[in-house]
Amino acid sequence: MIESLRPCIRGMAGYTPGEQPREGTVVKLNTNENPYPPSPRVFEAVRAALTGEGLRKYPDPLGTHFRRAAGRVLNLDPDGILIGNGSDDILTILTRAFVPEGGLIVSPTPSYLLYRTLANLQGARFQTIPFAGDWTLPKGWPPTGAHLTFLANPNSPSGTTVSISTIQEFNTPLVVDEAYADFAEDNALGLVRRGTKNVVVTRSFSKSYALAGIRFGFAVAEPALVHHLYKVKDSYNCDVLSLAAAAAAIEDQDYFRATRSRILATRARMEKALGELGFNVCPSQANFVWCRREDRALKPIYEELKQRSILVRYMNYEGYGDGLRISVGTDEEIDRLLAELKAIL
Amino acid sequence: MIESLRPCIRGMAGYTPGEQPREGTVVKLNTNENPYPPSPRVFEAVRAALTGEGLRKYPDPLGTHFRRAAGRVLNLDPDGILIGNGSDDILTILTRAFVPEGGLIVSPTPSYLLYRTLANLQGARFQTIPFAGDWTLPKGWPPTGAHLTFLANPNSPSGTTVSISTIQEFNTPLVVDEAYADFAEDNALGLVRRGTKNVVVTRSFSKSYALAGIRFGFAVAEPALVHHLYKVKDSYNCDVLSLAAAAAAIEDQDYFRATRSRILATRARMEKALGELGFNVCPSQANFVWCRREDRALKPIYEELKQRSILVRYMNYEGYGDGLRISVGTDEEIDRLLAELKAIL
Repeated sequence: MIESLRPCIRGMAGYTPGEQPREGTVVKLNTNENPYPPSPRVFEAVRAALTGEGLRKYPDPLGTHFRRAAGRVLNLDPDGILIGNGSDDILTILTRAFVPEGGLIVSPTPSYLLYRTLANLQGARFQTIPFAGDWTLPKGWPPTGAHLTFLANPNSPSGTTVSISTIQEFNTPLVVDEAYADFAEDNALGLVRRGTKNVVVTRSFSKSYALAGIRFGFAVAEPALVHHLYKVKDSYNCDVLSLAAAAAAIEDQDYFRATRSRILATRARMEKALGELGFNVCPSQANFVWCRREDRALKPIYEELKQRSILVRYMNYEGYGDGLRISVGTDEEIDRLLAELKAIL
Repeated sequence: MIESLRPCIRGMAGYTPGEQPREGTVVKLNTNENPYPPSPRVFEAVRAALTGEGLRKYPDPLGTHFRRAAGRVLNLDPDGILIGNGSDDILTILTRAFVPEGGLIVSPTPSYLLYRTLANLQGARFQTIPFAGDWTLPKGWPPTGAHLTFLANPNSPSGTTVSISTIQEFNTPLVVDEAYADFAEDNALGLVRRGTKNVVVTRSFSKSYALAGIRFGFAVAEPALVHHLYKVKDSYNCDVLSLAAAAAAIEDQDYFRATRSRILATRARMEKALGELGFNVCPSQANFVWCRREDRALKPIYEELKQRSILVRYMNYEGYGDGLRISVGTDEEIDRLLAELKAIL
């Protein structure tokens, strides 16, 4: 049956997700999960939704309860919110909505590797424009002729942001991928609130709300567009337990702020300590830190850490080079990372 | 931004899911949910997975634990199982894997309405071939030139099956959509076990396992194909709680058989009673019954039932006509349906 696959699928290498060791003894700093558990209200909400009636019936396809909660908390029109089975689902929906086969997707580089995969899956072309050296918007920005442009802000792997004021009106759809925006000083929701043309903002619950396990994300756009995007998503793309968890998580802003503060404090400590260990550290607006160095090869450091049961992400981008993307863990985890790095270096 | 949508998306009406009333007083016989709750082991498994570590970390992208459980129960190679966020997710993955823009999807008609939506979303053509009058395979079957063929077996809305022995080797991929196969006397898993060329079987947990709320389905195909399909699915398309629920559900085959028996007994009673009320009833191999009649219009009956808080599905197919698709509920629910129908007719 392989020979019947579309050539664009058959030829793909596929996106490789970060390693997910199933054992519990590894210090996992490779996929930017939140080191703290989700709000206690999430557990209460899931337990309350865990009924025979809840499980046997289809969930609300529109996620009305969640959209109302998110609308209140973020000061958004609930009709301008689209629910997704993780923000990857949202990025897929947007790609399918805007990009024809043979179409063009553009993104700055280095950035989230999934964008290229999404282009491949759609049979579309993918064009990257290198970020400026200081991680501001690339020369040649905004790109022209794209069916869809992805801008991760904060960006991965750099953890940097471009100033919201430099994100202009586009002539074609621009997706501001804000998976990490809750750790940043600013975000682009105001652009949508003000009706900036062609801007869609996407959010994830995997990082700031510590819910990577339940798969939830959403998009924010003009309601008339969201109405069309409903046609592209699977009718029941979000399940009853995830919807309950996400609504409870976003409603507990006190817990959210407390966790966020701890992560930002640890991040500041990491940046300083990693700099003292000789890494070139990007000032991060995300829950990870991007580390490079020129005096030593980075891949052996990654491997040495892995030997010592510490998993970080080694990334190597064509035309740019490599680095270690290290998630902000608990203080204890980061103490262990720093101690092992001292031993290795 | 609407003007930037692909024309195939902008022009779509979109799939309309069955009505999902949120109040609890309605007798809901319109979307073929299981009238009984899932196995008690599902609740135990979800509670056990509901931990801070489970929620904050990404789930297993391959669903290894579930695939092993399903492999044992169904006598399948776990490497030939692809996990999905509902079987609709699986149907989407297969469409994207095999059908280029402008390609061709074929299905018998009347059948599951989503197939046309999937073709529209992919910018593909959709061709239907009318079932034979006795719901056996259509004249002109197998179709030629299709990039993908969908065969719902049991079929919706008819609840009928085509004999597995009549499903031949195809020259192009054939998806046997077995969302309802657990209620039928036979299924096509043996075709995959025997390596029948170009056959993929899809399954749902929404019906027989009473888990519509948690969104889970899977595909069964040759492992080499599944390997490619992994590239098309979202990396983490199934969440940690759904995976735990699905594995627990399929492992409790005693509960599964007991629930199935109750549904089949009620179905037999429904068929007889609805026939006595003047409906032409298709002998069903699914958890619903397809009812037509020529002496009275069906839509007013649907509306009258809705007035009386009983929701069934009124369906009208171009070139075929209309009918009522009535899910098999509990005995109490069906008693109420029959009593109201007697009052109406």
